Amino acid sequence: MMSALSHVIVDWGTSSFRLWTLDRDGRVLAERRSGDGLAISGQRGFETVLESHLAALGVPGGVPVMMCGMVGSRAGWVEAAYLDAPVRLDELAARSTIAPAARRPVRILPGIAQRSPTHPDVIRGEETQLLPLALDGQSGLVCMPGTHSKWVRLADGAVESFATFMTGELFQLLRTASVVKPAVEGGEVDADGAAFADGVAAALAEPESATNRFFELRAGWLLAGTASDDALARLSGLLIGVELAGAARRYGSLSGTVLVASGAAATLYVRALDIGGADDVVVRDAEACVREGLHAAASILFFQREGTPR
Amino acid sequence: MMSALSHVIVDWGTSSFRLWTLDRDGRVLAERRSGDGLAISGQRGFETVLESHLAALGVPGGVPVMMCGMVGSRAGWVEAAYLDAPVRLDELAARSTIAPAARRPVRILPGIAQRSPTHPDVIRGEETQLLPLALDGQSGLVCMPGTHSKWVRLADGAVESFATFMTGELFQLLRTASVVKPAVEGGEVDADGAAFADGVAAALAEPESATNRFFELRAGWLLAGTASDDALARLSGLLIGVELAGAARRYGSLSGTVLVASGAAATLYVRALDIGGADDVVVRDAEACVREGLHAAASILFFQREGTPR
Repeated sequence: MMSALSHVIVDWGTSSFRLWTLDRDGRVLAERRSGDGLAISGQRGFETVLESHLAALGVPGGVPVMMCGMVGSRAGWVEAAYLDAPVRLDELAARSTIAPAARRPVRILPGIAQRSPTHPDVIRGEETQLLPLALDGQSGLVCMPGTHSKWVRLADGAVESFATFMTGELFQLLRTASVVKPAVEGGEVDADGAAFADGVAAALAEPESATNRFFELRAGWLLAGTASDDALARLSGLLIGVELAGAARRYGSLSGTVLVASGAAATLYVRALDIGGADDVVVRDAEACVREGLHAAASILFFQREGTPR
Repeated sequence: MMSALSHVIVDWGTSSFRLWTLDRDGRVLAERRSGDGLAISGQRGFETVLESHLAALGVPGGVPVMMCGMVGSRAGWVEAAYLDAPVRLDELAARSTIAPAARRPVRILPGIAQRSPTHPDVIRGEETQLLPLALDGQSGLVCMPGTHSKWVRLADGAVESFATFMTGELFQLLRTASVVKPAVEGGEVDADGAAFADGVAAALAEPESATNRFFELRAGWLLAGTASDDALARLSGLLIGVELAGAARRYGSLSGTVLVASGAAATLYVRALDIGGADDVVVRDAEACVREGLHAAASILFFQREGTPR
């Protein structure tokens, strides 16, 4: 017997769109992935983009949609105002924003703002991945690698504080738009290789020299013809190493870190944390976490605890 | 009585071209500045670009030209092969490269390569600014701020070692092409303001947190509407602070640093070095140094010590 379509969840970011249709228990029935990020969707219209994906899957009108990510930013469909940290994660669902949609209920989960004069910070999208961790009673330090890596201190179901590192964005800028480019062009990062590990270790030992180490990649290519694979892996290691050094400075020991990541990022950060001496690192799949978080929020908002539609 | 035109000097970089006509004693008779950097000049032809500037000043054929900078790189007019550090600076003139020019003698000074397996590095252009320092018997640590800031250990007229920091390039990338952009757009850096000093101090205290501090600039703008002047000055301070922390890690105390800089960069680095506790910083004007260095090389190569043409 097929499970019945109950609701839809969407993780809608700056440059990507991921949608899943779920049954009442959160089992995935179908999915859609595309590059319909904010810029493109803003031009076509957010509801138009959403409905085109739903039509492709034959989702009838009336089926509710729960969303998270930059779609709730000022440049998105409708602003889902930030919650202020420290904040309990079950507030995410309770304080979601209704998006104006003709054919169905659509809600966007809020991000979280850290309104600190010394450490202002924002998170929008990744907070939803924390919801299943909170529901599981997980506490401690959480690392979510990405374009803007987030380190979050979780305690008793609440986000106490967090810090964003521009690791992924700097990696892209340096590899595509800086003088480092010719040294790394066409390279692939081998997470198990020596070059990545050397980069992590060098940055952990001497994070203050990072902007010198980046230039050394170019010089090594000019003078010694360093292979692009090695140079790119070292660049990745340097940036992740600086991130770990910064996170350790802010939050102390990285042992016990819950790493919420998928694919290559998970492999790289597991190895980097190991090089950094962090014990008992727990990995949770980032994509599973965002689905579980969105499903949990949908269950709270669209259905009563007893399971009947609100 | 007018001084007689004797020779021409050119500092020809990736994005800029500066030319001076000099008399035998190095006095400036006239100058030209333009954006005829490497990319443009490679298309038009280096000799064509050079001769058009010389024609504009009425410089006759036969008058010799001494050049330095990226014009001597692989992508330049002709490659002036690197000298290997450690190297005496008087080798620069002795080992210059002849550029193929129909109308006059043209020479390009070499850059310097540090063929170290752990710290490969290259310098091309700035080494010429060191020549007058060497001639003056200056030793110790030299800082040359820029797109790629150079820190050089000078001893007994020789470059012992050096390190390049990508400070200026990262500043440009972050302000124009990253998520920090909206926070700093339209801003001006006040070297005497609190924001710049706070950035320097924050980076010196915690250089490992730099990639987090960059993101905080965006968050401060989003959450608290931080003024773009303050955000840009803080970004500048953070990057210069990281550079000073890295230089101190490599070379020890920064006291006694000879700062070879002009204009805004000189002001910013003097203040940053002061915040970093460096005493007895000596400032030398970067443009005067490049002119003096090129003139010294021209005097050695184009004229005998006695002053008669070779």
